[in-house]
Amino acid sequence: MTRAQLFDNIKKKSSYLCVGLDTDLSRIPKHLLSNDDPVFEFNKQIIDATHEYAVAYKPNIAFYEALGPAGWVSLQRTLEYIPSDIFTIADAKRGDIGNTSALYAKAFFEKMDFDSITVAPYMGEDSVKPFLYRDKWVILLAHTSNPGSSDFQLLESVVSGRKLYEEVILKSKLWASPDQIMYVVGATQAEKIESIRALAPDHFFLVPGIGAQGGDLQMVSKYGMNKQCGLLVNAARSIIYASDGVDFSKHAAVEAKKVRDEMEVCLGKL
Amino acid sequence: MTRAQLFDNIKKKSSYLCVGLDTDLSRIPKHLLSNDDPVFEFNKQIIDATHEYAVAYKPNIAFYEALGPAGWVSLQRTLEYIPSDIFTIADAKRGDIGNTSALYAKAFFEKMDFDSITVAPYMGEDSVKPFLYRDKWVILLAHTSNPGSSDFQLLESVVSGRKLYEEVILKSKLWASPDQIMYVVGATQAEKIESIRALAPDHFFLVPGIGAQGGDLQMVSKYGMNKQCGLLVNAARSIIYASDGVDFSKHAAVEAKKVRDEMEVCLGKL
Repeated sequence: MTRAQLFDNIKKKSSYLCVGLDTDLSRIPKHLLSNDDPVFEFNKQIIDATHEYAVAYKPNIAFYEALGPAGWVSLQRTLEYIPSDIFTIADAKRGDIGNTSALYAKAFFEKMDFDSITVAPYMGEDSVKPFLYRDKWVILLAHTSNPGSSDFQLLESVVSGRKLYEEVILKSKLWASPDQIMYVVGATQAEKIESIRALAPDHFFLVPGIGAQGGDLQMVSKYGMNKQCGLLVNAARSIIYASDGVDFSKHAAVEAKKVRDEMEVCLGKL
Repeated sequence: MTRAQLFDNIKKKSSYLCVGLDTDLSRIPKHLLSNDDPVFEFNKQIIDATHEYAVAYKPNIAFYEALGPAGWVSLQRTLEYIPSDIFTIADAKRGDIGNTSALYAKAFFEKMDFDSITVAPYMGEDSVKPFLYRDKWVILLAHTSNPGSSDFQLLESVVSGRKLYEEVILKSKLWASPDQIMYVVGATQAEKIESIRALAPDHFFLVPGIGAQGGDLQMVSKYGMNKQCGLLVNAARSIIYASDGVDFSKHAAVEAKKVRDEMEVCLGKL
């Protein structure tokens, strides 16, 4: 999917919501567990209920990997079920030496057909570049929203005076255009997004941390939006686990619509 | 496996060789391709031929993931085939927010029964700690051997004057003892290992880069060894792809023995 197509979808749906498919057998409604493939069945009903309000789905790969080979089958079925006009993100946080990253790219872009994958930058350029496929996206970790994000990401360079996550953005901007790379930018300190936006004015940011992780949509939008929206805001638990009843998907739809309605306001006249 | 057990195995075998099971369908001998599970069949014959000379096996997970669900079955079969006294490393380079890292740990330590997993440090403490299981190991990326390792790992802190990879070692030493954590330290600049050893005198280092990546075993051993050896030196392609003939495993054994014999000398009187 191109950047223009993504922005078109955002305008069409008045939404930049990404629904995180962090599907956990211990948290899904009990009545689904007798199903042959409860993970897929849960995802299917969530997708049916929320696709009107979402422009992206983001399965967190760990949740599938933890189930062994069957989990990968559920993941593949889920991916195939997602409507083709919706952007798909493999939240895998992969990254290794060149020939190995090339295999991860093959797994997620060829064996499966994700539009994008999250990548960890620690190993540098040759670990990231193999993920640069035509019409596919690298979503590079920059400043994450978890407590440990301050351990290394804020380390300040004696040479440039910039922090590690700023170096990651500035260096990786030389590897690919804003048509191929996005950044993961956590929402827990919304003001910070303003300075990150200054470093990467044209790039899309994938923003986790709304909902269960405690970010604030309006602040993130105020400080982070650019002329093409430039934001995909992820919500997972607050939507997919809104209820554990038989009618869980209805509750998911209500929660997704709530976020979409707020996004419609934030989008204004874009 | 405990540190003492690992050291016992090293002494018993006069070897600190880790064989990398980077099994690639396009590189294994053609006669294996008609097998039901050529990846497992290849690994089985490699393990049969080399286990006498190796103290560890390290499947690179990307090679299996790229094959879809069937790849995970081959991986699981391989893991179960490795003799139980040999240390196993899931070279997965995972790392995510706490609850997600916990699921990756579950995948590799519970669903499968690896002794250790390689972890990327970018997201900090809460991304690493969920991998700290009793008698299991985190092998944290510190200074890798690929070209991109200089992009961010060498960034020097304005506060401490230390480089990022040094900060990774010093901080993570506070999270776990040398009985639970090892470091990935590339072999391409052997002298550097001396300064890294000074930072972590008691820890095991997993050293890739011997063979195809161009490291030098004697230099690495001279600068990196500690009183309990403290090194696991990985070789993959130079051993497993020593030949693509029907007798490939014999050639693999010859190459593995060659490395072991050199290691025996390096170990001296340890």
